[in-house]
Amino acid sequence: MSKTAPGRFFEDFRIGQTLRHATPRTLNAGDASLYSALYGARFAVQSADPFAQKLGYVRAPIDDLLAFHVVFGKSVPDVSLNAVANLGYAEGRFLKPVYPGDTLSAVSKVIGLKENSNRQTGVVYVRTQGADQHGEAALEYVRWAMVRKRDPAAPAPETLVPETAERVAPEALGAACPVLDVAAYDFELAGSAHRFGDYVAGEQIDHVDGVTVEESDHMLATRLYQNTAKVHFNQFSEGQGRFGRRLIYGGHVISLARALSFNGLANAFHVAAINGGRHVAPLFAGDTVFAWSEILETAELPGRSDVGALRVRMVATKNRPCADFPYREGTGYDPSVVLDIDLWLLIPR
Amino acid sequence: MSKTAPGRFFEDFRIGQTLRHATPRTLNAGDASLYSALYGARFAVQSADPFAQKLGYVRAPIDDLLAFHVVFGKSVPDVSLNAVANLGYAEGRFLKPVYPGDTLSAVSKVIGLKENSNRQTGVVYVRTQGADQHGEAALEYVRWAMVRKRDPAAPAPETLVPETAERVAPEALGAACPVLDVAAYDFELAGSAHRFGDYVAGEQIDHVDGVTVEESDHMLATRLYQNTAKVHFNQFSEGQGRFGRRLIYGGHVISLARALSFNGLANAFHVAAINGGRHVAPLFAGDTVFAWSEILETAELPGRSDVGALRVRMVATKNRPCADFPYREGTGYDPSVVLDIDLWLLIPR
Amino acid sequence: MSKTAPGRFFEDFRIGQTLRHATPRTLNAGDASLYSALYGARFAVQSADPFAQKLGYVRAPIDDLLAFHVVFGKSVPDVSLNAVANLGYAEGRFLKPVYPGDTLSAVSKVIGLKENSNRQTGVVYVRTQGADQHGEAALEYVRWAMVRKRDPAAPAPETLVPETAERVAPEALGAACPVLDVAAYDFELAGSAHRFGDYVAGEQIDHVDGVTVEESDHMLATRLYQNTAKVHFNQFSEGQGRFGRRLIYGGHVISLARALSFNGLANAFHVAAINGGRHVAPLFAGDTVFAWSEILETAELPGRSDVGALRVRMVATKNRPCADFPYREGTGYDPSVVLDIDLWLLIPR
Repeated sequence: MSKTAPGRFFEDFRIGQTLRHATPRTLNAGDASLYSALYGARFAVQSADPFAQKLGYVRAPIDDLLAFHVVFGKSVPDVSLNAVANLGYAEGRFLKPVYPGDTLSAVSKVIGLKENSNRQTGVVYVRTQGADQHGEAALEYVRWAMVRKRDPAAPAPETLVPETAERVAPEALGAACPVLDVAAYDFELAGSAHRFGDYVAGEQIDHVDGVTVEESDHMLATRLYQNTAKVHFNQFSEGQGRFGRRLIYGGHVISLARALSFNGLANAFHVAAINGGRHVAPLFAGDTVFAWSEILETAELPGRSDVGALRVRMVATKNRPCADFPYREGTGYDPSVVLDIDLWLLIPR
Repeated sequence: MSKTAPGRFFEDFRIGQTLRHATPRTLNAGDASLYSALYGARFAVQSADPFAQKLGYVRAPIDDLLAFHVVFGKSVPDVSLNAVANLGYAEGRFLKPVYPGDTLSAVSKVIGLKENSNRQTGVVYVRTQGADQHGEAALEYVRWAMVRKRDPAAPAPETLVPETAERVAPEALGAACPVLDVAAYDFELAGSAHRFGDYVAGEQIDHVDGVTVEESDHMLATRLYQNTAKVHFNQFSEGQGRFGRRLIYGGHVISLARALSFNGLANAFHVAAINGGRHVAPLFAGDTVFAWSEILETAELPGRSDVGALRVRMVATKNRPCADFPYREGTGYDPSVVLDIDLWLLIPR
Repeated sequence: MSKTAPGRFFEDFRIGQTLRHATPRTLNAGDASLYSALYGARFAVQSADPFAQKLGYVRAPIDDLLAFHVVFGKSVPDVSLNAVANLGYAEGRFLKPVYPGDTLSAVSKVIGLKENSNRQTGVVYVRTQGADQHGEAALEYVRWAMVRKRDPAAPAPETLVPETAERVAPEALGAACPVLDVAAYDFELAGSAHRFGDYVAGEQIDHVDGVTVEESDHMLATRLYQNTAKVHFNQFSEGQGRFGRRLIYGGHVISLARALSFNGLANAFHVAAINGGRHVAPLFAGDTVFAWSEILETAELPGRSDVGALRVRMVATKNRPCADFPYREGTGYDPSVVLDIDLWLLIPR
């Protein structure tokens, strides 16, 4: 029996299968510092203990997306080592603040399978949950990826395409955000005067700035998340592959866009949900990422007067500023678009 | 009203204006580790808790320049987002040791304004103070930058060029350095036998080594400092700009030179003051930085027999070793010089 | 007297000389995070506090090789600043777990000297010990390097070539690994079902994955270790040297290979000894590293039923996958091989 893990192929998955992923990971202040160096985020809640504590946090929490990437990374060896593409996300919810010192583990359940007509690949749908050292859920999300078959002739598992919600309901938001003392929220220190009531559905915000990605950056990030997907690291093999280059982990793009979005959404300090998301096109080292957002919806949270929720479509492009909000073109996307993600963000009222 | 911050233009500043900067930042051991990886400094006080504790520190303090960069970074969105150049520093003083766990915030006061004759730009002088979570000053400095006008025809604010001291007075040094038990200072473990009395004014020291900068390094550093100046990150726009390349944050050069200066100034463990400084020429990825120092002055600190102060002119060059101490050439600088900075360093007596 | 350290030349060493190295270093959680980002290791014991604590560790220990690199780095200014090549290692033992917060210092003793026949260089053998803040030995090893003479005509010191053991004896292993509660070792969470009894001498394991190295990565790593060897950092001078490029610190290759070896040796969580090792060929940025291992020997540890030891030859190559285990070719090495190292690894029984 080989001691090396080949990863699962499409025909190895079964509906209802539970995959308990390897390598629990204690996140600490060093991870937060590295995350800061990788993206330069400036949201005050995650940046400063006293700012967070005055509001009601135990201390500055770990960035939501850092926790997400760590959980995602764990699922790669079991779910997507043989993936051709990471197709989408839904029903992502952040359920508990993650603090330095907390340890995350992850489990995925196979909730859908559908072979593609070419019989070379199939789509695998999993619901992944990240839990802390107490076994309490810290976040969960559905994702689906296109996974190769080992043997195209192998019989496909039964087909089941799960229904996922179009968006997380507002009443399901906020579990990872303690009830805040918003009177203690210092808007000047946070970098913007704009609060919940200042945003309206339909509003579009160009985040203005751009950031160029280097090979070293994205590999440092992806290793920090213990994400082992081969396409991100191995120029020897990728140089002979379909792009001739290492592919940047899609989550790196999400975090880059999120950090850029500070310029316009400085007080939207917490990602409460990932309603949906799609990596529209690959990003490579040397590309410059820009981003813009559209407020899709605003929602109050039942029983909470401290924070409200902005549903935001965040779009990232490569090598194209976003002053004119590039998005769809004909039946597809503008060729510059690399990411189209739909988030619920919490912001003080 | 746009939700994105355009930054102030020259005509937006007023003498006496107080700018309270965004995003407080808790510095922790992870930031110290990253700083170590970015520059490789080897000063024992900042490297090892027991070494620092034996002398009288609570534990190993955060590197002075890391604290400086973090404070500087906060001022960028309010002061120099529309700057053409960062012209100089004066009256920089380190006032309190910064330890892992401390949180820095920053406030700047506009102390000078002078429109340039072309009316396109003006020089803005600010005094910036970084305070800790107790509201106590940790460091302060004056800097001036050339900032664009939004509208060249706009009336200029009144002209005031502040006078700054040629150098911080020795009696104003040492606030950030507890009185040390120098008998406990292990010179062998610190890497050099040379102490205060071994240095004389006029002495020149070639720091010998050189270090090549990569795009990824300087962007990681500058993001760690939450410094958002566009010129450091965006190759898409800088590729079309005056240099065709991303410009490296000047503070990165200061830290590189400071780390190189260990070879010759190993016991000069603390930057007590920045008397003045100038970024003479831009640095770009691929360049190799060298440095040399001249002892300008030595000074005892009133009432202290533990440490003395060396006033040091530290010069950094690019792509030119410093065995012959390159500096001025005719009325200007040797073309290799990128940094000319004047510091007070504390060293055991 | 020059204030800069020129480093020792071959004729400066004496048998029995003790070199107490500079710059103690407190390792903290930030260093562990950076190590994770640099290599992406996934061994559960070093990754998660609760996993380690359930087994009997105080918390997740610092990666063995991170401690090794930090100790090695300290010895560079005193031993190998003027080295042409780092020739080999022997008798490396890890003696005590290193935890975040511990401070390492290092001392080397000169145990062998042999001038080369060309009289330009000589081989220096040192035994280096890294001790913690209590003065207790954390690790030790013998290494030898070829060091330039300042003056080829200088008389050589007496010749002594020390005898080193072919391998550390099994009864000398395990000091850095507390007696573990193996019933609490969660093999699924650790990523593999394979334990001590599943490996047999002669077994070869291809670690499959490859990772491409960038200039920024290896310089960040080597600076983190405060290793100042010039050849790793200075493109200006190396561009004119024998390779025309910066040389990657050999220890970086060891850590890359170790991280890759998770795929096949996931439960071999602890490097207990370095029996021998050789940097067969230089590695440069842009190269992709692959690795494979051969089990040379398996050994029980006297008096311990919790863990056993695998003696592993780990081979790293550049730009060549290892499915066919490239190693020797004729009287030398396969041209792809960059590292040939012989380790004792501990693994649950």
